[in-house]
Amino acid sequence: MAEGRLVIGTQRYSSWSLRGWLCVRLAGLDVGVEVVPLAGAGQTAALKTLSPNGCVPYLEHRGAVVWDSLSIAEYCAEHHAFLWPEDRAARAWARSVAAEMHSGFRAVRSALPMNLGRNHPLAAPLAEDVHKDIARINAIWTEGAGRGGPFLCGSGMGNADAMFAPVVCRFLSYDVPGLSSTAQAYMQAVRYHPLMVEWYAAAAREPVEWQLDMYETLA
Amino acid sequence: MAEGRLVIGTQRYSSWSLRGWLCVRLAGLDVGVEVVPLAGAGQTAALKTLSPNGCVPYLEHRGAVVWDSLSIAEYCAEHHAFLWPEDRAARAWARSVAAEMHSGFRAVRSALPMNLGRNHPLAAPLAEDVHKDIARINAIWTEGAGRGGPFLCGSGMGNADAMFAPVVCRFLSYDVPGLSSTAQAYMQAVRYHPLMVEWYAAAAREPVEWQLDMYETLA
Repeated sequence: MAEGRLVIGTQRYSSWSLRGWLCVRLAGLDVGVEVVPLAGAGQTAALKTLSPNGCVPYLEHRGAVVWDSLSIAEYCAEHHAFLWPEDRAARAWARSVAAEMHSGFRAVRSALPMNLGRNHPLAAPLAEDVHKDIARINAIWTEGAGRGGPFLCGSGMGNADAMFAPVVCRFLSYDVPGLSSTAQAYMQAVRYHPLMVEWYAAAAREPVEWQLDMYETLA
Repeated sequence: MAEGRLVIGTQRYSSWSLRGWLCVRLAGLDVGVEVVPLAGAGQTAALKTLSPNGCVPYLEHRGAVVWDSLSIAEYCAEHHAFLWPEDRAARAWARSVAAEMHSGFRAVRSALPMNLGRNHPLAAPLAEDVHKDIARINAIWTEGAGRGGPFLCGSGMGNADAMFAPVVCRFLSYDVPGLSSTAQAYMQAVRYHPLMVEWYAAAAREPVEWQLDMYETLA
């Protein structure tokens, strides 16, 4: 008997779901996972009444209701302290880059939507604001993973990595240029973490009917 | 000798600065506060080299560097536990609404910019997506403050209130309609909290040269 449930969206596309799912799995919460296919506007009618903000990921665990991926990350860290670094200053750094991802990088998120079935660059050149986001992300990854790695805060995947994992997927899908060798090594470490391999495999098994034109026709 | 510094933007306009400043003051961190006037794009040249993401609020405290208001909120909560509720499920709720504010409500943030010198509604009717944001915020405040109040998680101001405080300022400035009586009482509790009174007074003392046309000419 599981202690709750985690509701996520289509694994091929739902970047926020990937973040929440990684945190929940890293923390080892005993919850059932339910996948809801995303409709046009990113929300199905069912979702609108399911979670308080009408979005995924959505977690119920031992009487607590948690929505929004960063809130789920903090909830999971309370159960498994290693999701944030033990050192106070390192933890402040990890939370700051996670929060930066949570509220920002809108140019990258809009121009390069997550699509795990895609594996080729955009036909058109990237806009200036997309390049600016990429440069900042490259700086964060290079700084974090450059302290020893292979992950942003050391040898294990944590909450900061979970927040950036969908960006790794995007940068690989669109073959984004201009990343440091440290950032490239970081992307490989994330991509081949066992949980990411499991997520990609689940996405590949999703029904073809769940594929959405809005993501698939991007040149 | 202070243990660090908090850099914030113009108090009349900088909603994210207000959030970070409230958390730091509620936690009683011993830091000096520096105000940097905001330039056209919301960032001065000085800021771009000051903080890792070129934004305020920016906190340095006992060797830790913390940027982004939600990360500052978590940092402060580590020093003073009452900033999040003691109960696990209540804490998950508080973090979820704080995170929802952190990454969302863009229609309200764009249509109703914070301007503490303003005290009249917009001339034009509010757009549909602004009304949708207002309805969700009203639901959050009504649910939270409706459990006893006067704040979102009880009798004291905490991190969730800090995240919504600039929204209270906006709703008062623009005389936003359609709020429940609980939400209206909540706004009064926030507005007349001693720290908010102090912030408004400091904003009123800011030099007239710091006022920006982009905020002041909104009809």
